[in-house]
Amino acid sequence: MKLAKPLTLEQVATILKADFEGDPEFIISGINEIHKVENGDLTFVDHPKYYDKALSSAATTIIINKKVKAPVGKALIFSDDPFKDYVDLVNKHRPFNSCSQMISASAQIGEGTIIQPGVFIGNNVEVGKNCLIHANVSIYDHSVIGDNVIIHSGTVIGADAFYFKRRPDRWDKMTSCGRAIIESDVEIGACCTIDKGVSGDTIIGKGSKIDNHIQVGHDSEVGKNCLFASQVGIAGCVTIEDDVILWGQVGVQKDLTIGKGAVVLGQSGIAKSLSGGKVYFGSPAIDARNKMKELAMIKRLPEIIEYIDGNK
Amino acid sequence: MKLAKPLTLEQVATILKADFEGDPEFIISGINEIHKVENGDLTFVDHPKYYDKALSSAATTIIINKKVKAPVGKALIFSDDPFKDYVDLVNKHRPFNSCSQMISASAQIGEGTIIQPGVFIGNNVEVGKNCLIHANVSIYDHSVIGDNVIIHSGTVIGADAFYFKRRPDRWDKMTSCGRAIIESDVEIGACCTIDKGVSGDTIIGKGSKIDNHIQVGHDSEVGKNCLFASQVGIAGCVTIEDDVILWGQVGVQKDLTIGKGAVVLGQSGIAKSLSGGKVYFGSPAIDARNKMKELAMIKRLPEIIEYIDGNK
Amino acid sequence: MKLAKPLTLEQVATILKADFEGDPEFIISGINEIHKVENGDLTFVDHPKYYDKALSSAATTIIINKKVKAPVGKALIFSDDPFKDYVDLVNKHRPFNSCSQMISASAQIGEGTIIQPGVFIGNNVEVGKNCLIHANVSIYDHSVIGDNVIIHSGTVIGADAFYFKRRPDRWDKMTSCGRAIIESDVEIGACCTIDKGVSGDTIIGKGSKIDNHIQVGHDSEVGKNCLFASQVGIAGCVTIEDDVILWGQVGVQKDLTIGKGAVVLGQSGIAKSLSGGKVYFGSPAIDARNKMKELAMIKRLPEIIEYIDGNK
Repeated sequence: MKLAKPLTLEQVATILKADFEGDPEFIISGINEIHKVENGDLTFVDHPKYYDKALSSAATTIIINKKVKAPVGKALIFSDDPFKDYVDLVNKHRPFNSCSQMISASAQIGEGTIIQPGVFIGNNVEVGKNCLIHANVSIYDHSVIGDNVIIHSGTVIGADAFYFKRRPDRWDKMTSCGRAIIESDVEIGACCTIDKGVSGDTIIGKGSKIDNHIQVGHDSEVGKNCLFASQVGIAGCVTIEDDVILWGQVGVQKDLTIGKGAVVLGQSGIAKSLSGGKVYFGSPAIDARNKMKELAMIKRLPEIIEYIDGNK
Repeated sequence: MKLAKPLTLEQVATILKADFEGDPEFIISGINEIHKVENGDLTFVDHPKYYDKALSSAATTIIINKKVKAPVGKALIFSDDPFKDYVDLVNKHRPFNSCSQMISASAQIGEGTIIQPGVFIGNNVEVGKNCLIHANVSIYDHSVIGDNVIIHSGTVIGADAFYFKRRPDRWDKMTSCGRAIIESDVEIGACCTIDKGVSGDTIIGKGSKIDNHIQVGHDSEVGKNCLFASQVGIAGCVTIEDDVILWGQVGVQKDLTIGKGAVVLGQSGIAKSLSGGKVYFGSPAIDARNKMKELAMIKRLPEIIEYIDGNK
Repeated sequence: MKLAKPLTLEQVATILKADFEGDPEFIISGINEIHKVENGDLTFVDHPKYYDKALSSAATTIIINKKVKAPVGKALIFSDDPFKDYVDLVNKHRPFNSCSQMISASAQIGEGTIIQPGVFIGNNVEVGKNCLIHANVSIYDHSVIGDNVIIHSGTVIGADAFYFKRRPDRWDKMTSCGRAIIESDVEIGACCTIDKGVSGDTIIGKGSKIDNHIQVGHDSEVGKNCLFASQVGIAGCVTIEDDVILWGQVGVQKDLTIGKGAVVLGQSGIAKSLSGGKVYFGSPAIDARNKMKELAMIKRLPEIIEYIDGNK
């Protein structure tokens, strides 16, 4: 999330009542979770395992729970609980605003777009031209919909990222302030959920077609002209390149990449990145031909066991 | 889809600016995709693999992208892009009509039917007697609901078929003009999706009971008194005969048949037709007893490997 | 379900036009299905397999289809069709009441709670303080929501139990009169379904976090601080203890228990109870390390088959 108005290091440290290292006038122009950061961003880190990643990332201000030296050109804010402080900043700069009508006055709807009854369109949503939004769709604040997009009933665009921090006695919610972006010429079926990004964007690429009951988690990016059949589930922070086909009930774990033009057969489970241009099957998924061979070999188990039992 | 008013071959060819072979006065009484055609129908074919199927089908007018001789009693319309021309005809004869209120003025609602708040009922929908439609259900245009039907919240009846044609740079949408038909005494759980047929009907048979989060694809026909547990997904053009039980998260691929009284255990994947009266399990699903034997044999792998390693 | 006003044995028998055994003034204070009964409850049994269970349960009045002697301190009502008579009593004492507005006048909404547009809140629902109910959520009658609860769009709380009795020519519906209870600090994602109990309660325990597209069946009890990823499906009458993590697309069969702190990996199928504190994987799920070993051994099948073929 870009800040509407940049802050100085000192201003942020004052809000958080925290010590800091760096020029008090150092500029913070965005607040972003480590997954997607750029120059000018503030991010946070609270686990030794990720200190190096955060300190060497593109982010230029880091809230950290250890007294370290600031890398060149960067600023640090010291905190006992960087997660909490980061979430406090997000809540302060993007507070939830309720809506008293089905279509927010601040939503922009393009020419030629049809919005059927019962559709909720939240604050600051942008919908392009010639879209068709069917009845009882819900589009959360700040979502962006391109042109010629069709969204079927019951679908939810831009709900919160499913991202919680484990505490000894509870799960603390990461307030997500990113967006869901549906590019032009996309069709999304009924009862789908496309979550917003934690601080960046979840993207459904131009021309992709998505069937019913599909889940796309926070910060995942789906390429152009992909085709997903019903009940596919995609976790957070997944990259799916162009022209990928996922058949029904496929599940994709977080933080991985599916290469351009890959095809994954129904009910497969993707547990690691897949290279493009091939067909996959199984849970965990492997090359579909190898999976078929494996299934054929399993069929020979009676014969194998007969041999073993006869030779003991 | 039957045409409200039949057309002549010449009228259709003029609309499409296409050459034709046959009596200019030859009657076209319906427009249907090849999956379900009858005498009087116009259909299309654009792939050599399906020429014979289309030409020998019940359809009597065929849009085709090859100069062939018309079979006896049939007419042909020649087109460089039969898919596009077919979709143009569908869009012309069943254009989408938006709705400005939750219940369309053209919907017919039977006596004793209760419609809870937030329900959308589209144009030309028919709902029978003594139904209970819970809050925030969406029923698309032209759907037909029988008597004593219960539909739970969030469910979507009659959304578009998930049917696209691959083009080099995009997917082209097949406009679906069929219907979703929910017969009497059916109960459909919450957050289900029953898509409309491409040009024919998707049918949930009398007395069938369907749990939450279930997907039934276009043109699929579910028999009478079936029982589907939560999160079952059924692709398009599937035939499920009477008294079939599908347990949770079962997936069924397109274009196949599950025989009367079959029972499929949870998470199974159906990749080919199954005969009735048996119990199935696995992905791909096989006779459940055989699957159990197979699982038991896999448990003997340590022993098999020990034998092999010891005898090398 | 507790009766608003207790009935006598004679009153109930008169309603049902049935013979009975016991003191006509014997008190019936609740009507409950056998799964959850207590002293003062009426329940029913219609299958010889369950006679002993019903007669020795905590229920003190039993509708039964066999002339047996009443256990000490209990009453019997004799019926040819105990299921039908039980359902008739439920329908009489908790009839469905329709609602003419999105938020029922009898619903109680706590201070600080935000209800977005398009939300349906049924009769006698209680919502606590500082909740956030997103657009187009549906909450059925009698549901109870704690404090600080977040429910995302499209989700359905308290829909009917999926519970039918097989008759020769149809499925008869068990009218469910229990509740769905969402305890404080719970977050429920978009397009989820949490069904009501048949006569008791379905419970999501304090602090649990549930992603999108999740199904929780009737009478299931989820403990505190559980975490379920998207598309998890939990059948009816399941007990999930505290701190359980279920990853995406896991399926859980009915009538079983998952122990405290268990972790179940994605797409696993739980077919029997699991002890706590371990990691599970597979369909059916087993200890994850054992499953990984099994998968590794399956990879050695080519070598095994080569050996067998070479030694024949």
